[in-house]
Amino acid sequence: MELLDKLNWRYATKAMNGEKVAEEKIERILEAARLAPTSSGLQPFEIFVVKNQQLKEKIRPIAWNQSVITDCSHLLVFAAWDTYTADRINYMFDLTNNIRGFKNDGWENYRQMLLSSYPQKDAEENFNHAAKQTYIALSQAIAAAAFEGVDTTPIEGFEPDALDEILGLREKGLRSAVLLPLGYRQIDEDWLVNLVKVRKPMSDLVTIIN
Amino acid sequence: MELLDKLNWRYATKAMNGEKVAEEKIERILEAARLAPTSSGLQPFEIFVVKNQQLKEKIRPIAWNQSVITDCSHLLVFAAWDTYTADRINYMFDLTNNIRGFKNDGWENYRQMLLSSYPQKDAEENFNHAAKQTYIALSQAIAAAAFEGVDTTPIEGFEPDALDEILGLREKGLRSAVLLPLGYRQIDEDWLVNLVKVRKPMSDLVTIIN
Repeated sequence: MELLDKLNWRYATKAMNGEKVAEEKIERILEAARLAPTSSGLQPFEIFVVKNQQLKEKIRPIAWNQSVITDCSHLLVFAAWDTYTADRINYMFDLTNNIRGFKNDGWENYRQMLLSSYPQKDAEENFNHAAKQTYIALSQAIAAAAFEGVDTTPIEGFEPDALDEILGLREKGLRSAVLLPLGYRQIDEDWLVNLVKVRKPMSDLVTIIN
Repeated sequence: MELLDKLNWRYATKAMNGEKVAEEKIERILEAARLAPTSSGLQPFEIFVVKNQQLKEKIRPIAWNQSVITDCSHLLVFAAWDTYTADRINYMFDLTNNIRGFKNDGWENYRQMLLSSYPQKDAEENFNHAAKQTYIALSQAIAAAAFEGVDTTPIEGFEPDALDEILGLREKGLRSAVLLPLGYRQIDEDWLVNLVKVRKPMSDLVTIIN
């Protein structure tokens, strides 16, 4: 399966060479993130694509000074909703009705069920839920990049509060969840590039219940 | 890009026909989950593959009585670590050293850093972190299934405590995170199969910072 080849090819790139990724590749990588499934189809996140070099320089110190932050081509910031609100839920249900061109009782009942649960929950619980959905999209973006021959480095090692401040995310009702620099590997400076990929053996990961 | 075609083909299948998925397809789907990247490479989850029909019948009532639970071929239960422990961290670092055949100071320092942080954190915080990694693998399994022409339905609508009890997960230091039935669509009983896929327009999802 081609996906397995791509997942074997990719690795968390530790050094990038500054080369720019073509915009049409970026668009397809973002499209994969957009198509990723999410709980109730709410897509509870946004993606900020940082191309501005000065902004990357500003982010690097709050991301363990990792060189890929500045040496990548495009820095994707996946930001999850800080909570689920009625407006946000209604947006997706209205969009769905508009696109499909009809209203449906079952669907409207489901809307009411979500409206009567999510917005009343603790914001932190909702953010955690939204962040998990965000990781589904992150994962598809990583795979899509591999299909494009583009290297990636998923990064959790950053100060989310500081990044939220820099990008003004809290005012938008968002919180940074995970970073994904996109670019091209700098082979002679990357300690990981030639090391064997390590994964648990299937027997330690999977239990079959017959 | 072939991945985009597959992501467009897939949808959250609402009715399955009971047809069995070939074991070699299941193996490749699980391999995609195994290859998924995770934070520090810890792979903080396990996958239970429920083939037993009586067990599926037992799970269905605690999963909103969704028919795909029993009409799927294989029910994947993604279970995340209930917390990060020293043993679990050491397992992956030792495995890495064994596979790569050498020890490295930088890597050993990184091990110590993780040992001095994760195990001291609140278990709930650690579980939430592990669950996010689990969703990266879930996402690759969904994509891999699409490459195999296998339908999937990611399911959060279940009672995790009840499922943990049924599968004995807590004793193993695990908590159920998300379900993924694998099977084949039953077109004439699936209300969603012919509806247009709805996603936010790119302009509502992505902000470019030049």
